[in-house]
Amino acid sequence: MSDTSDSAVRTYIEAHRTAFLDDLADWLRIPSVSAQPDHDADVRRSADWLAAKLKETGFLSTEILHTDGAPAVFAEWLSDDPSAPTVLVYGHHDVQPAAVEDGWHTDPFEPVLKDGRLYARGAADDKGQVFFHTLGVRAHLAVTGRTTPAVNLKLLIEGEEESGSPHFRDLVEAHADRLAADVVIVSDTGMWSETTPTVCTGMRGLAECEITFQGPDQDIHSGSFGGAVPNPATAAARLVAALHDDDERITIPGFYDGIAELTEAERELFSELPFDEAEWLRTAKSRAPHGEKGLTTLERIWARPTAEVNGIGGGYQGPGGKTIIPSSAMVKLSFRLVAGQDPARIEKLVTDWVATRVPAGIGHEITFSAGTRPCLTPLDHPALQSVVRAMGRAFGSKIRFTREGGSGPAADLQDVLGAPVLFLGISVPSDGWHAPNEKVEIDLLLKGVETTAHLWGDLGGC
Amino acid sequence: MSDTSDSAVRTYIEAHRTAFLDDLADWLRIPSVSAQPDHDADVRRSADWLAAKLKETGFLSTEILHTDGAPAVFAEWLSDDPSAPTVLVYGHHDVQPAAVEDGWHTDPFEPVLKDGRLYARGAADDKGQVFFHTLGVRAHLAVTGRTTPAVNLKLLIEGEEESGSPHFRDLVEAHADRLAADVVIVSDTGMWSETTPTVCTGMRGLAECEITFQGPDQDIHSGSFGGAVPNPATAAARLVAALHDDDERITIPGFYDGIAELTEAERELFSELPFDEAEWLRTAKSRAPHGEKGLTTLERIWARPTAEVNGIGGGYQGPGGKTIIPSSAMVKLSFRLVAGQDPARIEKLVTDWVATRVPAGIGHEITFSAGTRPCLTPLDHPALQSVVRAMGRAFGSKIRFTREGGSGPAADLQDVLGAPVLFLGISVPSDGWHAPNEKVEIDLLLKGVETTAHLWGDLGGC
Ligand SMILES: [Zn+2]
Ligand SMILES: [Zn+2]
Repeated sequence: MSDTSDSAVRTYIEAHRTAFLDDLADWLRIPSVSAQPDHDADVRRSADWLAAKLKETGFLSTEILHTDGAPAVFAEWLSDDPSAPTVLVYGHHDVQPAAVEDGWHTDPFEPVLKDGRLYARGAADDKGQVFFHTLGVRAHLAVTGRTTPAVNLKLLIEGEEESGSPHFRDLVEAHADRLAADVVIVSDTGMWSETTPTVCTGMRGLAECEITFQGPDQDIHSGSFGGAVPNPATAAARLVAALHDDDERITIPGFYDGIAELTEAERELFSELPFDEAEWLRTAKSRAPHGEKGLTTLERIWARPTAEVNGIGGGYQGPGGKTIIPSSAMVKLSFRLVAGQDPARIEKLVTDWVATRVPAGIGHEITFSAGTRPCLTPLDHPALQSVVRAMGRAFGSKIRFTREGGSGPAADLQDVLGAPVLFLGISVPSDGWHAPNEKVEIDLLLKGVETTAHLWGDLGGC
Repeated sequence: MSDTSDSAVRTYIEAHRTAFLDDLADWLRIPSVSAQPDHDADVRRSADWLAAKLKETGFLSTEILHTDGAPAVFAEWLSDDPSAPTVLVYGHHDVQPAAVEDGWHTDPFEPVLKDGRLYARGAADDKGQVFFHTLGVRAHLAVTGRTTPAVNLKLLIEGEEESGSPHFRDLVEAHADRLAADVVIVSDTGMWSETTPTVCTGMRGLAECEITFQGPDQDIHSGSFGGAVPNPATAAARLVAALHDDDERITIPGFYDGIAELTEAERELFSELPFDEAEWLRTAKSRAPHGEKGLTTLERIWARPTAEVNGIGGGYQGPGGKTIIPSSAMVKLSFRLVAGQDPARIEKLVTDWVATRVPAGIGHEITFSAGTRPCLTPLDHPALQSVVRAMGRAFGSKIRFTREGGSGPAADLQDVLGAPVLFLGISVPSDGWHAPNEKVEIDLLLKGVETTAHLWGDLGGC
């Protein structure tokens, strides 16, 4: 952790910058769109390309892991230090769909370097952020004079993240022994901004259900029967309305049990970020903030659970009117969860609560899909401190903390491998994930390289 | 009002029964389905057939009234008594769709006489109930020895009732002078049962609206933004839930203003009817009664206003889940109204109330379609007493009172012509309106003839 090694890393990276960017551009030319079946061969080609590149980088073992869907890539470079900790890096090699018609200024699969940015689908999400690990480990070896990394380094780069990772948990369970690690590093998130480097310390979990409400055996006439039998659309609406109290807290008994309330120190850390609510609302395409009483927007999206209606439907939805009492209605609900909440327990609480709320004469069914557990790394976790130190050296400034409001396959790694999950990403909000003209800032990409060059030494204690 | 004239009427009807049923069967053979464009010519043929038949019956003037849709038939037979009151009979000559595949045991447009019933589409709704007026007026003349009826008799038989009467109000307004009457008699309803003859004294009115709720400019991610911006589907659900209080009374301020509460005498009249709630629930295809606290089912559907959700929709309604905050949501509401409530005033009350309930950050729009006013005939109205007397003579038993929960074009006649609306129908619930194997009971059909034979004399004071 010396100024000398910092500048040695920079020199090494500068020397390899052009080849690194050329290689990344080659990979970005492969349109590995997992959601579009006509790109299946491209996704396989992307996996093969990455496996070959990792072998060339020096990983001693590289392998394609097949799933019932698109293949993942697994690579291993073990340390010759028997006491070295084991790190598993997670990322994905598939990308979102992209077409010039969507508003791209250039071909999304023909990378363009311009004004210090590399434009291409996947430049930031997630090929760029996977790829900085290749040069990072080389820089680590070069400046430490080691022949093997100071950590046992494993990479698991999946091929279906943009399709919802349908086979990821099976994959992790099938290969749990080989994937075993002391810490998981997910490189598939971002930072607050170019000028405010941050590390993400957690993601929310998720429980999702659909509830159907059965009223009359068929739509019945609202004149003949209206006012005298229960209406399933009304029952659905009342259930949704009853989810929250006047302070926008969720009313389901036991829902908040076990949640660690935000500490003053954590709230202070959130408030240090240069949050611009008007700008955030523009991103949310919304007109007003709204949520649990007494909390800021960042506290609401990062540290508090939610109950949202994703869909609601019942009765006649076409043009004009139709004077019926609908036969049935349904709502789709999703609950974002925070540390201390378990999706299986939430499923039971919601199920029990719904059963008490449905009126006599209305039948109901509730179905949950597989839940996702929340991840949260304690701020004093030693590995997190390593990440903060390594980023601090790369960025030359104070590293602050963020969280993610969403939920991701990282939770499967945490659950199956029993290892803490850390997040190391250098993308910024303007990178345009899933949008036209996705790009990555070259300077930040190289800071990612630099961070990992320091991180393996820090984690490995050298 | 003598036993002699009662038996004379019966004798006359018996003598003409066969020709009457043969003629009705001819009319029922015309598939005048107004909702199916390929039957447009049949609807026109049905109007022509009826106009010719009314001319043959003796109506001095018969005419096809054209609309922007299907034609109506207007016929007039004025009294030679200059002080005779004027009666306008309303019915319709179009029918619901019908096909053998729907479960008919015989061709729906080839009438079958069996076990004292006439089976055909339109037998009860509404050709049979229009047609009893043809023999009724002849019987009236025959037994009174008159050459013209004791009332100025007008018939308006529309051709679009089963399609929602889209041009009916325009028609009535365009011909208001010629349709002018002291009383309107609607023959398009039914009685309680074969053994409990009743007269309907009112229909509920109707106000209908659609409310759209605008949230984010597009669907947004429920992880990134959930819990911190308002959700339009939640807003829609909360609005619906807020429509009623715990006693299932509607909470919109002023909604009940001006309603005459049910008197003890009216409640007593309702309770005299042999109501079987289990049987009613089967008709409603529902599993439990539900509604305003402290009221019976009949009170709820006949004498109280409602707020029903006819449709609700927003967000993702396909299979599986989608973790979004929807961009928009909508609800379709209908309000059944009772005497004392005006659709225009209800529209304003609902509009104002909705505006106060939509949360900050959610845009909304509310659109009402044309409303229908409620009809209610006071039990002591002289014309209603005439109907009760005439029915009492025909049926030989006490006539009780019902109401209709639905709303109908009768209200347009009440509004435009300023005349009270009475209901004279002999159909029973088992007749199967809008269902396969629709039929009419021949005995009841002839009681309809008999009732009108007495009614014109009673109303005309002879
Ligand atoms: Zn990604
Ligand atoms: Zn009808």
